[in-house]
Amino acid sequence: MSSDSTLLERRFRVMGRNAPLFYDRPVHLVRGKGVWVEDADGRTYLDVYNNVPNVGHCHPHVVEAIARQAATLNLHTRYLHETVVRYAERLTATFDGSLNAATFTCSGTESNELALRMARYRTGGKGIIVSDFSYHGNSETLASVTTCFPVPEPFPAFARKVAIPDPFRDRQGRSDEELGDYFAAKVREAVRSLQADGIPIAALLIDPLFANEGLPELVPNYVAKAVGIVREAGGLFICDEVQAGFGRTGDAMWGHQLANVVPDIVSLGKPMGNGHPIGGVIAASDLIDSFGLAATYFNTFGGNPVSAAAATAVLDVIEQESLLENGRRVGAYVRAGLERLMAQHAIIGNVRGHGLFFGLELVEDDAARTPATAKTKRLVNMMRDRGILLSKIGRYDNILKMRPPMVFTEENADLLLSALDDALNAL
Amino acid sequence: MSSDSTLLERRFRVMGRNAPLFYDRPVHLVRGKGVWVEDADGRTYLDVYNNVPNVGHCHPHVVEAIARQAATLNLHTRYLHETVVRYAERLTATFDGSLNAATFTCSGTESNELALRMARYRTGGKGIIVSDFSYHGNSETLASVTTCFPVPEPFPAFARKVAIPDPFRDRQGRSDEELGDYFAAKVREAVRSLQADGIPIAALLIDPLFANEGLPELVPNYVAKAVGIVREAGGLFICDEVQAGFGRTGDAMWGHQLANVVPDIVSLGKPMGNGHPIGGVIAASDLIDSFGLAATYFNTFGGNPVSAAAATAVLDVIEQESLLENGRRVGAYVRAGLERLMAQHAIIGNVRGHGLFFGLELVEDDAARTPATAKTKRLVNMMRDRGILLSKIGRYDNILKMRPPMVFTEENADLLLSALDDALNAL
Repeated sequence: MSSDSTLLERRFRVMGRNAPLFYDRPVHLVRGKGVWVEDADGRTYLDVYNNVPNVGHCHPHVVEAIARQAATLNLHTRYLHETVVRYAERLTATFDGSLNAATFTCSGTESNELALRMARYRTGGKGIIVSDFSYHGNSETLASVTTCFPVPEPFPAFARKVAIPDPFRDRQGRSDEELGDYFAAKVREAVRSLQADGIPIAALLIDPLFANEGLPELVPNYVAKAVGIVREAGGLFICDEVQAGFGRTGDAMWGHQLANVVPDIVSLGKPMGNGHPIGGVIAASDLIDSFGLAATYFNTFGGNPVSAAAATAVLDVIEQESLLENGRRVGAYVRAGLERLMAQHAIIGNVRGHGLFFGLELVEDDAARTPATAKTKRLVNMMRDRGILLSKIGRYDNILKMRPPMVFTEENADLLLSALDDALNAL
Repeated sequence: MSSDSTLLERRFRVMGRNAPLFYDRPVHLVRGKGVWVEDADGRTYLDVYNNVPNVGHCHPHVVEAIARQAATLNLHTRYLHETVVRYAERLTATFDGSLNAATFTCSGTESNELALRMARYRTGGKGIIVSDFSYHGNSETLASVTTCFPVPEPFPAFARKVAIPDPFRDRQGRSDEELGDYFAAKVREAVRSLQADGIPIAALLIDPLFANEGLPELVPNYVAKAVGIVREAGGLFICDEVQAGFGRTGDAMWGHQLANVVPDIVSLGKPMGNGHPIGGVIAASDLIDSFGLAATYFNTFGGNPVSAAAATAVLDVIEQESLLENGRRVGAYVRAGLERLMAQHAIIGNVRGHGLFFGLELVEDDAARTPATAKTKRLVNMMRDRGILLSKIGRYDNILKMRPPMVFTEENADLLLSALDDALNAL
């Protein structure tokens, strides 16, 4: 403990007092393996938060690929290299045939930046529509359209934000179909508002799971309708798969496949290299070719041999260990358990999720659905004391966020569920 | 060869026809060690181009650090971790005392984006001044101020570009002092032009070596004078050390130390992790703290334990192998050799450089200094045929760019010089 507080003071001094840190009393982790992490005092935690170590912390197949390639060659893509080409072929093969080419980056931020540049280049427009309470990156432009926390950048004239498609709070008697129309109408308003200001739309930029927005139950047809409206106005659909992608939902490799819509541009990040910094943009080769001619896009680290080897190893493990199937099976098991907990704990207002990505919305009372924000924060800390790492999201910060590595098992789920039950009783 | 052309076709198909590639006939590299790389046919090349493998290709100390940490833990900085804090302390200790805090990113692009956001936040201004023929990143905002190649983004109203401080082409009888005043006056004009348009200046963003601009001989006092003018107008100095930093010049760890100016913000990238994707921003903790309060800046991969371990290992090697001293000594040896070549080959108009970073400006005739652009391109390909990798830069694309890993030796230099002599004879 005393060494942790010294480390924290040193960190404050040299990395700033406001660099984000989880928990009232930060966790000092030193080791990770599969779904487990260990702190400096030798205490282990079940990791129910981190999707970046997608196939499990320090998966030996990924570690070995990184170590082997780092010892062999690590250079940019202005020389030919087999690994990155083979990876690009294998990755694009998991998408609709129209999404047949890739450009690599180092992060989700760089991917969304490139996606935006491509969309603006292709459409000639500048307008962007994002969700309320969303986040797509930390660069100047993406920060300016961040709607889930304060940023110093003014909300730009070229952007509009639309309501979160949230059936739990906004159904108000509407059928699913009506709900889809209701939220799609907000997108139409946003497009018209841009047009009224003389700003043609470049893109609708959304996460198909609306994860930062609170992971609401998906409104059938909403994304398809919204995309239809945007395309009719000349804009593209940029699908941010940084959280939803690489099998997270169990049902599909990509989040947009749940919505049955093929995006114009897909941006990738977080889980792609199991922690190794790699991101990417997938689009039609025609778009990538013509943008490349206009822009001389080059990314020094993007798609280098080590990044490509790490990302290849991640695909290997997803396939070899049937992680989509695991996400589907264990995900359904967790969800059933969470629904049982909801029947027992009045504070749980709503359970939602897909595959190994869950939200639990906590409310003070069932009728008014007053967000239990303070209690959610306490619960996150209480779960940490019970050896389980998770977090919270949503516009009221009252939604428990659970998104473990994809190797999560039923046994891990039992541990999570019983600790949750215990903590909710103690809350 | 036939397998290379197949690989090239596959690459065109899946990564686009216009993704940058070096050489008329691309090099297909498979292995690297120290200053050497090897192609798929077993041919070795002396690498006189790549600064990213700063301490040598696949340096065992760096490879081991990456492999060890990747097998132990790789998570974001919202948990405490010793390695990143220790690295931040060690890195900031190499700067002036006022530059005492760090934020980590994945690339030079992300670093310059963050630097720009910080400068705009601190000053309240939006104006940016860059050099003509410069490059600072591939994001939307940074691409829009790119002046060294065409981009689809229009040059923004908030930016101005100033002349390259190039004594070779613009001395015209001026003394060094007069030259500094002459180029600084262009910066004053740019500031006034922004002010006239009601755009307060946020920052002067320059590479202290003006590398993309053609690596001109440094004009004494130019940077100090330019920074003085910008600061007087309320702007900050962002020093882009992506190419100049980490000892490249031999004389100092940081390029700005050659100009005797302390920047307000420093951005880092390329050589920082010897190829592992890491970048960073160095500034006063006061700036990082207050920006962090306003902005909730978070970077998923930035400063993760593997990145921090790789970057730490790079600092280890720079110290243990005295790479600054090596850069100074071997750099002087190369430079003397290049000057001997200039005396023998009329096409060499000018030799410039610092430490292990050289430019050789090729001209058609000594008096008019007509750029020998086509011959420079031919020379780069001829050197590749002689087993030496280098490239070209500058507004006329007529400056040979040489920037080998910092472990370059006198023996390597002899090889470079004799191959250059031979190729120049054959040109």
